[in-house]
Amino acid sequence: MLLVAYDGTSFHGFAAQPGQHTVGGALAAALGTMAGHEVALTCAGRTDTGVHALGQVVHADLDEAVVAKWAGRTLEAGMELDRLPRSLSRQLGLAAAVIEARVAPDGFDARHSAMARWYRYDLLTTPWPDPLLRHRSWHVPGELDLAAMRIGADALLGEHDFAAFCRRPPGESERARITRRVLSTSWGPAPGDERVLRFQIEANAFCHQMVRSIVGTLVAVGRGRVRAGELLAILSSGDRSRSAQPAPPQGLCLLGVRYPAELVPGGRWEPGGGEW
Amino acid sequence: MLLVAYDGTSFHGFAAQPGQHTVGGALAAALGTMAGHEVALTCAGRTDTGVHALGQVVHADLDEAVVAKWAGRTLEAGMELDRLPRSLSRQLGLAAAVIEARVAPDGFDARHSAMARWYRYDLLTTPWPDPLLRHRSWHVPGELDLAAMRIGADALLGEHDFAAFCRRPPGESERARITRRVLSTSWGPAPGDERVLRFQIEANAFCHQMVRSIVGTLVAVGRGRVRAGELLAILSSGDRSRSAQPAPPQGLCLLGVRYPAELVPGGRWEPGGGEW
Repeated sequence: MLLVAYDGTSFHGFAAQPGQHTVGGALAAALGTMAGHEVALTCAGRTDTGVHALGQVVHADLDEAVVAKWAGRTLEAGMELDRLPRSLSRQLGLAAAVIEARVAPDGFDARHSAMARWYRYDLLTTPWPDPLLRHRSWHVPGELDLAAMRIGADALLGEHDFAAFCRRPPGESERARITRRVLSTSWGPAPGDERVLRFQIEANAFCHQMVRSIVGTLVAVGRGRVRAGELLAILSSGDRSRSAQPAPPQGLCLLGVRYPAELVPGGRWEPGGGEW
Repeated sequence: MLLVAYDGTSFHGFAAQPGQHTVGGALAAALGTMAGHEVALTCAGRTDTGVHALGQVVHADLDEAVVAKWAGRTLEAGMELDRLPRSLSRQLGLAAAVIEARVAPDGFDARHSAMARWYRYDLLTTPWPDPLLRHRSWHVPGELDLAAMRIGADALLGEHDFAAFCRRPPGESERARITRRVLSTSWGPAPGDERVLRFQIEANAFCHQMVRSIVGTLVAVGRGRVRAGELLAILSSGDRSRSAQPAPPQGLCLLGVRYPAELVPGGRWEPGGGEW
């Protein structure tokens, strides 16, 4: 299991796609070179083109003998593979990095074991743009009604059918429910940079473009184009045409993933801070 | 006079150079298109390839009649040209932006009127890299002795010959003095991001690669390779081979420029925050 960070600007999303430079494709190639066999990856949150990650979690099934030889010792669940991050990161280039690698505990699945994911979305609120933030934020000049945006976000808490905020997979029925449980939301200035208004959201899982559709709609609320009280009606309509255009991808970043504490100590994979 | 921000990653420095994509070249071209004549630019701080700016100040001599017509009114010193920033920024693309434009007061020269410039330099101190900061910081893993770095920085305060920390212009004598006055320095965590150790320095003026050479040497102090007490000896040697390799450009950002208050109200050009 790997803890991975990347600058989404440089990739065509996470999921491997033939002929595209993707995080998953590059990582699978690097692992495959090391393991001497083809590697399939599973990640906790499939991010789109332009979307970043600071705490993506990935797992892969590798030949145990190869990894043990490579680690120079017998493998044990939870054991840190301390030379792997550097070695993989070198192959990935500077736009992506493996922060930490561990031997996964039995039964661990980066996607299916995850209990929750959290994301942030950054809005740059100054009238003028900031070239240094153009790949990290959505420039939204003009007044925003923050109180209304908070009320709108609160309306999303709990378990709902988020069909109105999701891009459905091709072929899926328009009437299928897309149930997700939103655990927390917040709007506030980014620490250290008051120009940036930051949205954070935690949910058990997210459907495709869900955070971006929510942010797009909450910004419409902040601009007074949608009433905060309308959020529940949009949700219950299940009608995607009633939510706003998704916010652009570059403001979005996957911050972390929560797992049961028996699989990941503390429930969240925080890098140890030792030698890298 | 223009207040300009840019992402240095996308440019071959500020100074216009034939066949290179530079901030100054792009800006002069955009202004020239508007004015209908060739435009020469003067900036407060010539930044190198990869170096950023949030508060660069630039002036140009434009045909007054053109600007007055363009502004739709008679020009007065200090008057804000409120449509110019958007129009110029559109031509510059997203990697650079004109934040504000004003009619310069008589006698204003972006370079020669400047009393001081200040820069920041960001070090990323985590053991692992952060892909999102790779164009904004120098990754310096491992322990740094912050107290020693502060003592070393203090030694630079005041007026000195900075030849040991400067790349001399071609042809200049090795013995010419390069006198600059350092007004303040500080080292501390970047607000909101404790992983980043930020250096700030203000001086009346800087010679070529001065901040980067200072940071490279202070990091050598922090790593225990140079003693803090040696800084004055390095300064007085005037010998560039005694300072460390310059820190890489991407950690450096020109934050602002100080002018006499009779030329720029308040002494520093802070964007007004009105309509952009």
